[in-house]
Amino acid sequence: MNAIIQARQAGRAIPDSFFQALQEKFGGRFSRAQAVREHHGRDESPYPPMLPDAVVSAQDVDEIAWLAAHCHRHGVPLIPFGAGSSLEGHILAVQGGISLDLSGMNRILSVDAQDLTATVQAGVTRKQLNEYLRDTGLFFPIDPGADATLGGMAATRASGTNAVRYGTMRDNVMTLKVVTADGRILDTGTRARKSSAGYDLTAVFVGSEGTLGIIAEVTLRLYPQPEAISAAVCNFPTLESAVQSVIDVIQMGVPVARVEFMDTAAVRATNAYSKLQLVESPLLLFEFHGSAQGVQEQAQTVQEITAGHGGMDFQWARHPEDRSRLWTARHNAYFAGLQLRPGSRSSTTDVCVPISQLARCVTETARELDEASFPYTIVGHVGDGNFHVLMLLDPDDPAEWEESQRLNQRLVRRALDMDGTCTGEHGVGLHKMEFMLQEHGPEGLALMRSLKQAFDPRDILNPGKILPAA
Amino acid sequence: MNAIIQARQAGRAIPDSFFQALQEKFGGRFSRAQAVREHHGRDESPYPPMLPDAVVSAQDVDEIAWLAAHCHRHGVPLIPFGAGSSLEGHILAVQGGISLDLSGMNRILSVDAQDLTATVQAGVTRKQLNEYLRDTGLFFPIDPGADATLGGMAATRASGTNAVRYGTMRDNVMTLKVVTADGRILDTGTRARKSSAGYDLTAVFVGSEGTLGIIAEVTLRLYPQPEAISAAVCNFPTLESAVQSVIDVIQMGVPVARVEFMDTAAVRATNAYSKLQLVESPLLLFEFHGSAQGVQEQAQTVQEITAGHGGMDFQWARHPEDRSRLWTARHNAYFAGLQLRPGSRSSTTDVCVPISQLARCVTETARELDEASFPYTIVGHVGDGNFHVLMLLDPDDPAEWEESQRLNQRLVRRALDMDGTCTGEHGVGLHKMEFMLQEHGPEGLALMRSLKQAFDPRDILNPGKILPAA
Repeated sequence: MNAIIQARQAGRAIPDSFFQALQEKFGGRFSRAQAVREHHGRDESPYPPMLPDAVVSAQDVDEIAWLAAHCHRHGVPLIPFGAGSSLEGHILAVQGGISLDLSGMNRILSVDAQDLTATVQAGVTRKQLNEYLRDTGLFFPIDPGADATLGGMAATRASGTNAVRYGTMRDNVMTLKVVTADGRILDTGTRARKSSAGYDLTAVFVGSEGTLGIIAEVTLRLYPQPEAISAAVCNFPTLESAVQSVIDVIQMGVPVARVEFMDTAAVRATNAYSKLQLVESPLLLFEFHGSAQGVQEQAQTVQEITAGHGGMDFQWARHPEDRSRLWTARHNAYFAGLQLRPGSRSSTTDVCVPISQLARCVTETARELDEASFPYTIVGHVGDGNFHVLMLLDPDDPAEWEESQRLNQRLVRRALDMDGTCTGEHGVGLHKMEFMLQEHGPEGLALMRSLKQAFDPRDILNPGKILPAA
Repeated sequence: MNAIIQARQAGRAIPDSFFQALQEKFGGRFSRAQAVREHHGRDESPYPPMLPDAVVSAQDVDEIAWLAAHCHRHGVPLIPFGAGSSLEGHILAVQGGISLDLSGMNRILSVDAQDLTATVQAGVTRKQLNEYLRDTGLFFPIDPGADATLGGMAATRASGTNAVRYGTMRDNVMTLKVVTADGRILDTGTRARKSSAGYDLTAVFVGSEGTLGIIAEVTLRLYPQPEAISAAVCNFPTLESAVQSVIDVIQMGVPVARVEFMDTAAVRATNAYSKLQLVESPLLLFEFHGSAQGVQEQAQTVQEITAGHGGMDFQWARHPEDRSRLWTARHNAYFAGLQLRPGSRSSTTDVCVPISQLARCVTETARELDEASFPYTIVGHVGDGNFHVLMLLDPDDPAEWEESQRLNQRLVRRALDMDGTCTGEHGVGLHKMEFMLQEHGPEGLALMRSLKQAFDPRDILNPGKILPAA
């Protein structure tokens, strides 16, 4: 893959004394070992590794503040690192510098059952939190598939399969403890459920991908575990009939908790990978949350809608084990897709469009991809208008990479023309920078640049990401 | 009232040629008449008027951009004006300059029923929009009481009685068309339901009170009109039992659409003002939205909870007229309160605390207010932890004003100590500036100042608001 990706690593010169100070401060939690740097120089994107000069593991916010001040003084890049599950090259050290590993900051600091909030260190993962919450009757809904850290999910404005009901990280982060570029510590808000007290600093940092400040702690909204949950699969004759059903469901105001789309190729791959016997046609995977009565009512309404679009009878997953198998299979659609072409790597798209445009966007895209020289699958969080194409590429064939990039450029152009976005949930990282000007225009990009300049005047925080060079 | 409020007006020198250019450009939509300036120099706060030097009515975004560029070139303050219903002195011309009246920009530009979105010019009011939507089966839920403009509601991050179910303007603005301080025009986002494409400019402008840019158009989320709506009043023996009921309702995850608290004095005032026969004890006013079955189920669950806290039987408002009378009465609680003391003006508080702290915050506050030399009422959006004290002051008695300010300072301190905010929904304007340092700390305030400096380097946009002088 090295040969076919253009991103280049251009490190900044760093004096030895800089590293000596880190060694003294962090001891065994400071490393320049090749293996450690390699682990921190790559994510789940197809980019080749770009290594930081050193890795530091912090244990608390004060250590982060010390480190930021040190890097700020010396103009050294500082890149927060959580689980390394980002998909767009977010944590690659394109200018070298320090990778700040936050996975050791994995303490759940407080859970308040009355207020439905939890405060966690940035390195806590979503599964860890939900495991911890299991006996409290509460849960944290945002589920991007990967067991990402909650700090990382806040930093990328992540969402996933149940954003259609519970929103994204934008909606579920109440306040953050953040370290600024020069090492000051602040709380961006309070635990009040709403506030009009000045600029929304919380929202400024959510989705900023480590480029405006370092998220040290996250306070999240929790939800009562629903009294009843049910899940069902519904197959359709065509992609359009599936998507049109979703539009109707949303328009009726049915509070579905999840509604996921898989095309025939994705279903076939999932059957093979996860040993399931799903009918191999376009399908929707529904989950309903509520009271026993409410769930029944939702399911009935949705069944009437899908039947009206030629949907087959619902296949129910009534038991928690069945439900869990189904959702695990959905989450593994990425790995399942890769198995359609052994040895391939995936380049994944992430457009999100107004739902009225979704059927057209997906069908036009599928028509183009049918002509491609590589296989693909489509899965989607269709309740949000968000879908992913997994393009399964031969890593040794630069022509396939270039072809996939051209197809993605056309897809993004199509989504933007429909008043959509180049990325619904994965973030910009390196891979979407080329679309920022198209999406935000020169005026929007200028404001973003002035914000970056105001918050990180020495450009040390995850430099070379989000904003293309002017 | 003039004598007892300290805010001072210090205008900037403006050359005649500046006004001549406005006269040429806007003709009859430019005015320096005293009456017009007076109308634009006051809001619903108890502050004395502070007049702009002139008023301009814009008809479209290009006119706003022209005006901003003109003001920017000459360093003249520019203050957006909607309905004038703000409560904290937001639109007072503390440094003179131009009041930009947006009420003529009142066109509904598009409604998309499939996507559940509407795009409106900033001067459209919420009632106008809902009137327009009536036959579409959709509605826009945010309801601050006043018939504010949607641009103004976005600018103050407004909410109101049904934020507990539908969120605030933060959650319901999808994208904005904004004019920058120097007259550039941009869209802050797209109509996609979610995006991770860089910094959240929409959230930066929502709640910025005209200090970072001028909101020209707003794209909002709409909701399907619920199949069934019911409303009920429940009286309680004590304030605590009412508030504790709300905590339990929220914790159970019952999706109540509204839950409003009124103390005995507020009920008494409302009975007198709105000719109702409500039982004069602390009460909660509920509204339920959903399917017929769902509404019934919600109401039953809530009745069980309130009964467990000593709540009386529900008094139902089953017919739309009854419901409308009840909510009109609730919205008129402000005017009803004023009638408790004829000739008084109200100073209104707006703290919001985590709901676990709400009972303690309200009771401690009531205990202090019982000692005050003026009457008061308490109403609250208690599902959010937000409540308002209306302190009914003699406008000719400076001692009462000072006493009310001391009580508010103690209330805000109490709310901040409980991890709450000084303003849940009214915004900062002039009146809450003194609390910004306490709430955000020097670090948070420094970031806000750097943001203001980045977006409005010449400090022309609604200067002297939100951020206290450094």
